[in-house]
Amino acid sequence: MRIAVTNCNTTQAMTDTIAAGARAAASPGTDILALTPTWAPESAEGWLDSFLSATAVLDLLRTCPEPFDAVVLAGFGEHGREGARELLDVPVVDITEAAAHLACLLGRRYGIVTTLDRSRGLIEDSLHTAGVAQNCVAVTGTGLAVLELDDEERTASALIAAAHDVRDHGAEVIALGCAGMTGLDRRIQSAVGLPVVDGVAAAVRLAESLVALGLTTSRAAFPTPQPKSRRWHPDDDSGR
Amino acid sequence: MRIAVTNCNTTQAMTDTIAAGARAAASPGTDILALTPTWAPESAEGWLDSFLSATAVLDLLRTCPEPFDAVVLAGFGEHGREGARELLDVPVVDITEAAAHLACLLGRRYGIVTTLDRSRGLIEDSLHTAGVAQNCVAVTGTGLAVLELDDEERTASALIAAAHDVRDHGAEVIALGCAGMTGLDRRIQSAVGLPVVDGVAAAVRLAESLVALGLTTSRAAFPTPQPKSRRWHPDDDSGR
Amino acid sequence: MRIAVTNCNTTQAMTDTIAAGARAAASPGTDILALTPTWAPESAEGWLDSFLSATAVLDLLRTCPEPFDAVVLAGFGEHGREGARELLDVPVVDITEAAAHLACLLGRRYGIVTTLDRSRGLIEDSLHTAGVAQNCVAVTGTGLAVLELDDEERTASALIAAAHDVRDHGAEVIALGCAGMTGLDRRIQSAVGLPVVDGVAAAVRLAESLVALGLTTSRAAFPTPQPKSRRWHPDDDSGR
Amino acid sequence: MRIAVTNCNTTQAMTDTIAAGARAAASPGTDILALTPTWAPESAEGWLDSFLSATAVLDLLRTCPEPFDAVVLAGFGEHGREGARELLDVPVVDITEAAAHLACLLGRRYGIVTTLDRSRGLIEDSLHTAGVAQNCVAVTGTGLAVLELDDEERTASALIAAAHDVRDHGAEVIALGCAGMTGLDRRIQSAVGLPVVDGVAAAVRLAESLVALGLTTSRAAFPTPQPKSRRWHPDDDSGR
Amino acid sequence: MRIAVTNCNTTQAMTDTIAAGARAAASPGTDILALTPTWAPESAEGWLDSFLSATAVLDLLRTCPEPFDAVVLAGFGEHGREGARELLDVPVVDITEAAAHLACLLGRRYGIVTTLDRSRGLIEDSLHTAGVAQNCVAVTGTGLAVLELDDEERTASALIAAAHDVRDHGAEVIALGCAGMTGLDRRIQSAVGLPVVDGVAAAVRLAESLVALGLTTSRAAFPTPQPKSRRWHPDDDSGR
Amino acid sequence: MRIAVTNCNTTQAMTDTIAAGARAAASPGTDILALTPTWAPESAEGWLDSFLSATAVLDLLRTCPEPFDAVVLAGFGEHGREGARELLDVPVVDITEAAAHLACLLGRRYGIVTTLDRSRGLIEDSLHTAGVAQNCVAVTGTGLAVLELDDEERTASALIAAAHDVRDHGAEVIALGCAGMTGLDRRIQSAVGLPVVDGVAAAVRLAESLVALGLTTSRAAFPTPQPKSRRWHPDDDSGR
Repeated sequence: MRIAVTNCNTTQAMTDTIAAGARAAASPGTDILALTPTWAPESAEGWLDSFLSATAVLDLLRTCPEPFDAVVLAGFGEHGREGARELLDVPVVDITEAAAHLACLLGRRYGIVTTLDRSRGLIEDSLHTAGVAQNCVAVTGTGLAVLELDDEERTASALIAAAHDVRDHGAEVIALGCAGMTGLDRRIQSAVGLPVVDGVAAAVRLAESLVALGLTTSRAAFPTPQPKSRRWHPDDDSGR
Repeated sequence: MRIAVTNCNTTQAMTDTIAAGARAAASPGTDILALTPTWAPESAEGWLDSFLSATAVLDLLRTCPEPFDAVVLAGFGEHGREGARELLDVPVVDITEAAAHLACLLGRRYGIVTTLDRSRGLIEDSLHTAGVAQNCVAVTGTGLAVLELDDEERTASALIAAAHDVRDHGAEVIALGCAGMTGLDRRIQSAVGLPVVDGVAAAVRLAESLVALGLTTSRAAFPTPQPKSRRWHPDDDSGR
Repeated sequence: MRIAVTNCNTTQAMTDTIAAGARAAASPGTDILALTPTWAPESAEGWLDSFLSATAVLDLLRTCPEPFDAVVLAGFGEHGREGARELLDVPVVDITEAAAHLACLLGRRYGIVTTLDRSRGLIEDSLHTAGVAQNCVAVTGTGLAVLELDDEERTASALIAAAHDVRDHGAEVIALGCAGMTGLDRRIQSAVGLPVVDGVAAAVRLAESLVALGLTTSRAAFPTPQPKSRRWHPDDDSGR
Repeated sequence: MRIAVTNCNTTQAMTDTIAAGARAAASPGTDILALTPTWAPESAEGWLDSFLSATAVLDLLRTCPEPFDAVVLAGFGEHGREGARELLDVPVVDITEAAAHLACLLGRRYGIVTTLDRSRGLIEDSLHTAGVAQNCVAVTGTGLAVLELDDEERTASALIAAAHDVRDHGAEVIALGCAGMTGLDRRIQSAVGLPVVDGVAAAVRLAESLVALGLTTSRAAFPTPQPKSRRWHPDDDSGR
Repeated sequence: MRIAVTNCNTTQAMTDTIAAGARAAASPGTDILALTPTWAPESAEGWLDSFLSATAVLDLLRTCPEPFDAVVLAGFGEHGREGARELLDVPVVDITEAAAHLACLLGRRYGIVTTLDRSRGLIEDSLHTAGVAQNCVAVTGTGLAVLELDDEERTASALIAAAHDVRDHGAEVIALGCAGMTGLDRRIQSAVGLPVVDGVAAAVRLAESLVALGLTTSRAAFPTPQPKSRRWHPDDDSGR
Repeated sequence: MRIAVTNCNTTQAMTDTIAAGARAAASPGTDILALTPTWAPESAEGWLDSFLSATAVLDLLRTCPEPFDAVVLAGFGEHGREGARELLDVPVVDITEAAAHLACLLGRRYGIVTTLDRSRGLIEDSLHTAGVAQNCVAVTGTGLAVLELDDEERTASALIAAAHDVRDHGAEVIALGCAGMTGLDRRIQSAVGLPVVDGVAAAVRLAESLVALGLTTSRAAFPTPQPKSRRWHPDDDSGR
């Protein structure tokens, strides 16, 4: 089985981090195809970035020459999920919903620790749309921008502070709210004493499960995009 | 006062319809600047189209050389709203939410008649995010695609059938769920006996109201996009 | 266009304040007809006052000899709205819902600063009934009674404190929760750094918009009161 | 123990029906004091009537020379409840909420059969405010006006039809949605095969329970009305 | 009238406390039949205990040789309620829902003070299922286990602290969240200044009301258990 | 990895069916330990059965001499889940929630087809408690009792009819609402044209995922049962 894992920004180092997290989580025999958009923001923080990222990721997926059996969208709170479901015949799992689904299995209330507070609204809306917002009690920012996560010590320290905050709001389980945090789950779990779910790992496992069970997106929910003229960028004259 | 009204697709004829509807609704002294994306789908029907359209509209707004005092986003259920609020210092009103706001003033329960059923999910999510979904009882498609609305007789007939359907679901007010339906409100109102709100008209009036009252988007909700490298399309090397 | 703006209490000075706020917000060509009930409480603070006020306002509207094109009900959280919609053929806009509608266009979460905490319940219920409660995160009292608002310095100072409180609860936009606060929006906005919506101004603009667009209350939602014997007060023998 | 049961309209025959229903439900030793407003509509059907009725009932209660230990407000969906709680030191139970409370003890989902469809909105709002709307699946009108309920055969027949309708919407318990229906519960119950709750009977029993347990309204929720000048009607110069 | 009041644990001293509370609340002429499970936990604190307790209580009720007219289930937050409704032809009232129903009649928002925080989730779920969770603002533990409630001074002191906590969360009415707290309502009420509802007393009065009004569980909601082979414990060969 | 899969009733043939379904879904290297309660109902249909089953399953798990890495509770809508989470240090996944989690990844709205209508309430409550009820649009019974599912033709035919019903209510994905339906997913999927999720298969995959990712139940949510005297059945004198 091969799972395409797409970064939502153009920063290759983040794709590498995500790919490592995905591979660590994958079952034996699962191949991870890590993808980076050729255009998009260098990091997605807010709605404007998120919409731009969504389009770039969709453009990447529609033009990807490689075959794959499922897609993991590795942008926490980022848009694009439903568009990818329309576009592709294989299952699509977004790391936002994936973290929430597993968190619901571990406790009655969960919270999310993320990068900047400006991402909070996107995450809340994404959880609601995915049908798993009910048990989320808090989304707390660390104050670190996406591209500042490369300093692991500073990141871990900020995540632990944010994790204590969501615990104080009643969270019994914590989800890491950025693809770039993948791999830090065990460390935060030890420090805070609550289960910590990494969305990349969760999404890889959920995608594998859907493929293994022969399940894919409902066309009643997400019909194939209609054939029509679409210009994907100013110089696109392909008319698809 | 000048209000930029953006079509969300590349079809100029639809921009013309929207511009006519906006001008008919505007106060004396309000100038309507009608904008058409240079790239995007020719019509937006579904999530993939909506994300692509959102990015194209944001690209259009960020590069628009003309000044304006407010923006009306004329794509019913289409994405982009929150990104435009981040991008711009002037108020942004989306026709989806605008129709719902006025509908709430006219009855306890409202319904929406739209183009294809595949747009229903987008509209429901957009209303929820805007905080006005509570009193919406139904979103019903006419079975007509966006670009099929040019046949006014067929469109009116399909809208009346859909309006009866939402009325049967308890709607006491009806909103027209596509920018391309602008101008048909009176006709449907006569046929169905319920008030009919046209989102383009509603949004123009709400945008005027915000400008007149000196109100604009809260930066606590929608901070300005961070300065960073963004590639808006494959050939974009501007680094903004 | 002429808009009747009704105070909900018998204090003429408050009617004057409201009228000034309404006129400052109105479009050129809109005439404001300010009305004061001849009976009612001198100020409405709580449910008993609110029901008494509602009846007095309805009595005022049904007996008003002057023509008008729309009504603005200038009692924040006060009852009567749906009764006026039954009674009249012209649109009716309540300042509570009006403030909330515009607040929703400016941010994801709004809060309300009002007079006494005892009004909180009325305001929460009114927002829910109007369909716009979802994004309200807090209603905070200033501790000032309605008739204590005439000391502008004290009022502004108390409003700023309450505004900081609702901001701490997550509000990104603030609505002034009493008709008697009209005109203080700019000052609070400067002090707190969030957009501040004045319900009287918002309602005038929304009422104008409905009139301009030819929209009025749905009779499916609010049918005309049935002809029957009604005694409006102990000495009423008119039998309507 | 003496319970004041207030009709919400001026029709004495309906007061007599309500009093008979209340007495049939009361415990031995409970005295029913039946009250009729001296002003108000002859029947309450819709918001305008409901606000007028609320004020008249509050006027009645504040001027009632008789002592009582609790109040039952016998207007289904009618306003006034929270005002009476502010006004009085004894418990206040409204027949709308009372019917819902007992219905929740008998099944997972309940429905309400009422007079005219125009009362539906009032009932829905009243249930929500009382905190018991969650399990209500339908409110269905019989098409009979309040003053048409005196024909028992026609009423029973219409109620049975409406009861089948709410059962089809999932109701497992039925509440009679008008004070004037009191006494018909057993007959409808036999015909439909579901438990039928009469709000007047339910409210009398709940009021007795509160009195017996020494419980009354929370002043933190409903503080005593402030001393101020209130004109209860055009000729009121008492200044209370 | 005879009401069976079942303790949910095997501790006879707690049954005695509950019986005393039930008798103090009952109407003249109501006989209280206090029951103790012969198997179950000695106290129920958490889900495992609650499910075990539910089964033991159902076993107790199905094998009880004594007749009764209604059942009160005296375990706050404990399971079993719906099973008892299936099993019995007489009304069943659980003290959790009973406390909430009366609390809703006394204020707009209520809170619950209970034993250990680990019971919070059970109580929240039970209120939701009963349809009365909407107005509950907080469930706060005292830190005392069920069997530690026998020290009245310590219990009262801990309850008062917890009561202040729920008041700070907006509660205007307080419910005692453990059957073993019965009888302490007046004392807490005096100390905190808010009405305090005792679930045992509330349930006894509600059960009496249902019996008096001839109301019992809807079989459409809770059909009689199907005849089938059930082994109630490892040595049960009765096959019912 | 070894996963204990517990039937919730005493019927060995159903355990065999469940075990076969679990093995078909499991990854290579996962060992399925199928367990049958020694006491309980022969099938669980309704609350009384469900509570009895929950206790029997907890008794089975606490006395099971075999080691295992995770538990799958194979009773759709049945109680016990949270108690097992308190009892065990390994992850616990219930087939009800498992089916819902995967269904949410495949469409915006899902529906459930189950055995008898009397199970509907249990399923609805279980989904709500698990935090995944938001997107469930319908739970429809087939009219077949649990032990009637052995006739595969009749079962498939009834399931297809029920599946059409939930589709008519807006379901875009269908979940099989009984452990005994495992293995029929592909057949229903072909007939109805919507993805069909089998809860047993889904739960096995989710349990594997949690184990693989080193995640287990939050003790902040579900603390270990307190040491105390518990009698698990009338003849239990072990005092645990």
